[in-house]
Amino acid sequence: MRIARFVVDSDPMYGVIEGDEVTQIAGDPFFNGVQPTGQKFALDDVRLVAPIIPRSKIVCVGRNYADHVKELGNEVPASPLLFFKPNTSVVGPNEPVTLPSFSEETSYEAELAVVIGRICKDVPVEKVNDVIFGYTCANDLTARDAQRSDGQWARAKGWDGSCPLGPWIETELDTDNLRVTSRLDGETRQDGNTADMIWGIPELISYISEAFTLLPGDVILTGTPAGVGLVREGQRCEVEIEGIGTLQNVFRSH
Amino acid sequence: MRIARFVVDSDPMYGVIEGDEVTQIAGDPFFNGVQPTGQKFALDDVRLVAPIIPRSKIVCVGRNYADHVKELGNEVPASPLLFFKPNTSVVGPNEPVTLPSFSEETSYEAELAVVIGRICKDVPVEKVNDVIFGYTCANDLTARDAQRSDGQWARAKGWDGSCPLGPWIETELDTDNLRVTSRLDGETRQDGNTADMIWGIPELISYISEAFTLLPGDVILTGTPAGVGLVREGQRCEVEIEGIGTLQNVFRSH
Repeated sequence: MRIARFVVDSDPMYGVIEGDEVTQIAGDPFFNGVQPTGQKFALDDVRLVAPIIPRSKIVCVGRNYADHVKELGNEVPASPLLFFKPNTSVVGPNEPVTLPSFSEETSYEAELAVVIGRICKDVPVEKVNDVIFGYTCANDLTARDAQRSDGQWARAKGWDGSCPLGPWIETELDTDNLRVTSRLDGETRQDGNTADMIWGIPELISYISEAFTLLPGDVILTGTPAGVGLVREGQRCEVEIEGIGTLQNVFRSH
Repeated sequence: MRIARFVVDSDPMYGVIEGDEVTQIAGDPFFNGVQPTGQKFALDDVRLVAPIIPRSKIVCVGRNYADHVKELGNEVPASPLLFFKPNTSVVGPNEPVTLPSFSEETSYEAELAVVIGRICKDVPVEKVNDVIFGYTCANDLTARDAQRSDGQWARAKGWDGSCPLGPWIETELDTDNLRVTSRLDGETRQDGNTADMIWGIPELISYISEAFTLLPGDVILTGTPAGVGLVREGQRCEVEIEGIGTLQNVFRSH
């Protein structure tokens, strides 16, 4: 099932996408389940927004694809390398991203995002599926110069707009072997596969939930494959994940 | 004015503390202003809880007192060193803190916390006072072993319970010259002064707001003076800040 968040006139609503239509859901599916209202809209007549703005956190995993670890000259960490993005970093599909004022080197990073569906802590590997609501595409936008200079990555990876999410949440997905690609102005730059993750989703969520209680709507970014590179004002970046769809954003200068 | 969040029977309420009484406020003072209802309680009859659970983020500043930078063998960073704690890390005054399962070396760090009152971005240094709601005490609890091994500090400083806040928010405070102390089982361990911050609050909030939109209820932790050390199960840590009050928590094993 594809769950989207969208705007027709004013306040965002949730809906289920089927074909080129979206059927409105009553309330918030993270708390009320999926209860369609019967109200339908043509997808062309709505504006999709970020499918989730976490109430708590986005937990990200760095260096989780060996080929990307190598391209940046790093070493594979001994345990998952975790960092946070705040909820103010989220933008939606087709929403323009304003490049950060403090950086001259912003990079795209295509990533599979896991959306949490239940409050949970210390989740065993074999129970991880029970706490997942679904999956979406993410772009872990990174100010490389700030990442090098700052040591901690809060600013480099947490600026307003640094976390495009969308276009919707796919709730049924086998994530073991999915192509993860990014394109810059239509040209393929990253072409990886979730099969090459160093830590898989069950291990990641189990590990993360040892440290942090996860809340419904929290998002986990699972790392990026090789092929990252810089973006410039006016360029368009697409993140496509097999079985989900394509998240597209255009960059503008500050 | 001292604004507390407290529980009598079930749901938390906000109130204004005067002497040994607390007067209930209608709704959320971050959005509705301070409108006392007239309903009063004796402070002894209520349970104080964390004065704020941020809807978005806690932005923390590392290495902001030269004597603390020195005691850990670090160098003063060229710009404020920023990291995040998630809102799931917050606990209130007198709430027990469960030591993290993945660490054998948890340290206390007494810090002045700034609570943001208005949505803001790119705040000039001279306008910072306009966006501050008030100040409270924080304990930036840190798993030193994870901090050393992980590189990024999300796990070391973001675990459930790693951010005690309280006991209340003081809205009127000149923060230029305030004693910041911590005591472990009654024995003074840290005894610093906000006058010794490397970056003052105006510079910090201006810098932070260049990267992140700050929302009402977001919290900024401003760094810790020298004297940090480890805590054990059963110990009691107090953070006292002149003009605010004392935040106390006891540690228990996982």
